Amino acid sequence: MPRYKLTIEYDGGPFVGWQRQANGPSVQQAIEAAILAFSGETVVVKGAGRTDTGVHALGQVAHIDLARERTVDTVRDAINAHLRPAPVAILSAEAVEDDFDARFSAVKRHYLYRILDRRPPPVLDRGRVWHVPARLDAGAMHEAAQALCGLHDFTTFRAAECQARSPVRTLDRLDVSREGAEIAIRASARSFLHSQVRSMAGALKKVGEGRWRVGEVGAALAARDRTRAGPVAPPEGLYLLAVDY
Amino acid sequence: MPRYKLTIEYDGGPFVGWQRQANGPSVQQAIEAAILAFSGETVVVKGAGRTDTGVHALGQVAHIDLARERTVDTVRDAINAHLRPAPVAILSAEAVEDDFDARFSAVKRHYLYRILDRRPPPVLDRGRVWHVPARLDAGAMHEAAQALCGLHDFTTFRAAECQARSPVRTLDRLDVSREGAEIAIRASARSFLHSQVRSMAGALKKVGEGRWRVGEVGAALAARDRTRAGPVAPPEGLYLLAVDY
Repeated sequence: MPRYKLTIEYDGGPFVGWQRQANGPSVQQAIEAAILAFSGETVVVKGAGRTDTGVHALGQVAHIDLARERTVDTVRDAINAHLRPAPVAILSAEAVEDDFDARFSAVKRHYLYRILDRRPPPVLDRGRVWHVPARLDAGAMHEAAQALCGLHDFTTFRAAECQARSPVRTLDRLDVSREGAEIAIRASARSFLHSQVRSMAGALKKVGEGRWRVGEVGAALAARDRTRAGPVAPPEGLYLLAVDY
Repeated sequence: MPRYKLTIEYDGGPFVGWQRQANGPSVQQAIEAAILAFSGETVVVKGAGRTDTGVHALGQVAHIDLARERTVDTVRDAINAHLRPAPVAILSAEAVEDDFDARFSAVKRHYLYRILDRRPPPVLDRGRVWHVPARLDAGAMHEAAQALCGLHDFTTFRAAECQARSPVRTLDRLDVSREGAEIAIRASARSFLHSQVRSMAGALKKVGEGRWRVGEVGAALAARDRTRAGPVAPPEGLYLLAVDY
């Protein structure tokens, strides 16, 4: 069976998340329904990783197996035609070897967390950013973030419901910078724990507000204690940007 | 009466445009209703310029006169509190002299027109860009645009319903560049004719597709004939960025 790698953009707002669930529409289910509609085939769309309710993607990756060979343009355009009006689009389809696995072949995942730090509420980016109504210190946030880079036990920044066997991960990059009127947090790692990026973003926001000193982020990490993390940042600011293979 | 200058962001999608009209909600009316709700005062919000149905603003400017002096933070925050949930926000309020007029004191207006030129439909930027499902040649578009800069009779690129006395305008800047996955057209002038930016964007898109040669934009301008313009670009790609005083 021909295997295709799909690169996918979606607005997480109307979905319960990537993963199929009983309690509402998922991105995975929307794509599976579109594939069934165009091809008559019932397939399972296997993603590189789950994204939570409300989290967006500019470059989620998944793979599918189809019974019949089709051109990559046909696969992309036919799924997109049947996805409308759901806010999901296949950006590209590529033919891949049958040992390619969107989840297990991935070597790095890249996330962006956007914070709009101004007093007036977001308008054009409503539902696309975390609104923090006071100016944050991006320099202090970046400095604090560096304590999280490298190989660590990330128990502090892990959701209670995280199913990973080990809390140890290697964080390759955690950069904070001002981009126009916003704060951008860019995180890269082979893999992340459940809610790890949002939990780190929540702690960095405390530093940006001056409520936490720069050193408190590293101290919270060292404590390996979930109660030491700040509140988890909301999903609407988070984007799965890209997955490397 | 104290006069305030307001800088305003809005999503044009749900509005009939800036200007109050009988046939639907306008941005002007939304702000006037919010001011009445917080201050009890019936004011007229005078904008730097009208924007059409569906056109967005990142920096529209208007002025208001209030009966009672208030801090600029109070004016901004109180209007914003009463604007919710309308997608309009006052970014700043400033105290100005009573000879300041948002429309007549303006010396330059800046617009951005965004085109997403890719085969898959927009998702996160749905309603925020013009979707053109084929790659455009930004370099050719920029070259063609230069024929429009300077002092010209813009009859070709003017809406039939334009109420300006003269079709002569000085276009200071019309730059086309690729910004990430998009095409950005940036236009600056003291003032524009009705639909001028969208009409110019429509013509430049023809050049980007290779349907018009670079020289045809300048030839259409010289013809001073509205039938020589291409189709007017849709409103959802247009942003009033800023007004200079």
